[in-house]
Amino acid sequence: MKFMLLTRAADYAVRVMIQMAKLPEGQRTSLPELAANTNAPQSFLSKVLQTLTKAGLVRSWRGNEGGFEILAPGRNATLRTVVEAVDGPLFLNVCLTSGDSCELERHCPAHEVWVRAQSAVMNILDEVSVAQMALGHQQTHGAKLQQISELPPRQQNG
Amino acid sequence: MKFMLLTRAADYAVRVMIQMAKLPEGQRTSLPELAANTNAPQSFLSKVLQTLTKAGLVRSWRGNEGGFEILAPGRNATLRTVVEAVDGPLFLNVCLTSGDSCELERHCPAHEVWVRAQSAVMNILDEVSVAQMALGHQQTHGAKLQQISELPPRQQNG
Repeated sequence: MKFMLLTRAADYAVRVMIQMAKLPEGQRTSLPELAANTNAPQSFLSKVLQTLTKAGLVRSWRGNEGGFEILAPGRNATLRTVVEAVDGPLFLNVCLTSGDSCELERHCPAHEVWVRAQSAVMNILDEVSVAQMALGHQQTHGAKLQQISELPPRQQNG
Repeated sequence: MKFMLLTRAADYAVRVMIQMAKLPEGQRTSLPELAANTNAPQSFLSKVLQTLTKAGLVRSWRGNEGGFEILAPGRNATLRTVVEAVDGPLFLNVCLTSGDSCELERHCPAHEVWVRAQSAVMNILDEVSVAQMALGHQQTHGAKLQQISELPPRQQNG
């Protein structure tokens, strides 16, 4: 068994948000289309989209003319925002769940390393927005990589 | 529900390894002692120690005079080695499970960000050994933090 930080639902959420962000503002898309484009089972993706809608990142319409549209907060959302909208706050280790403190911190020299690792991941996930990722897709692969690596480095806490 | 990269077992493994590394070479300790020092249930910790023994990081003796001793590879093991001995390879996201590639990579601009985040975490977990953490514990908290932040930065892949 492989342990991962992200659930499948969060992974699909990121992919589906990027798909929707590739469309011009105001353009809706359907569940079957999104499912086909993200390689996701429709029933599962439907629940993911419901969560993203509740989080205010996506708008949904019912009926034949219905579908889904990404909203401005969705385009501006960082990778971290999308993932946490589905999975809730992400933690590398249980010792981080109460902020930077831990009941055992004074006894555990590993805690500070976990704080640094957590901070490093979150900084990277905070750097890129859905809109940037959607844009990156339309460029050549090389240009996309360059664009991302040129983002200003963030100060790491601690 | 909170999602975490590490299992509880891996978290206990790190704590118990640090506890053992604080002892002089060749000195054994008992399961009840380790359980008390790490705040872990004995039955659960016993399984964790079995895994660490199988991984060659710890040696165990049966009987009244028995107990557990950390071996040289255990003292030298990095935080990552200990965690992966229990949980197997760690991945932030499913798209990273087949190395740096992903079946959807050409279609998914988030992949490169996940690669960078994964690399950042692993570099930090690779920087610190069990012995260093055990040593850090004996110093003042401030000195420990300084010691860790003074480690040479690693080159990040990608």
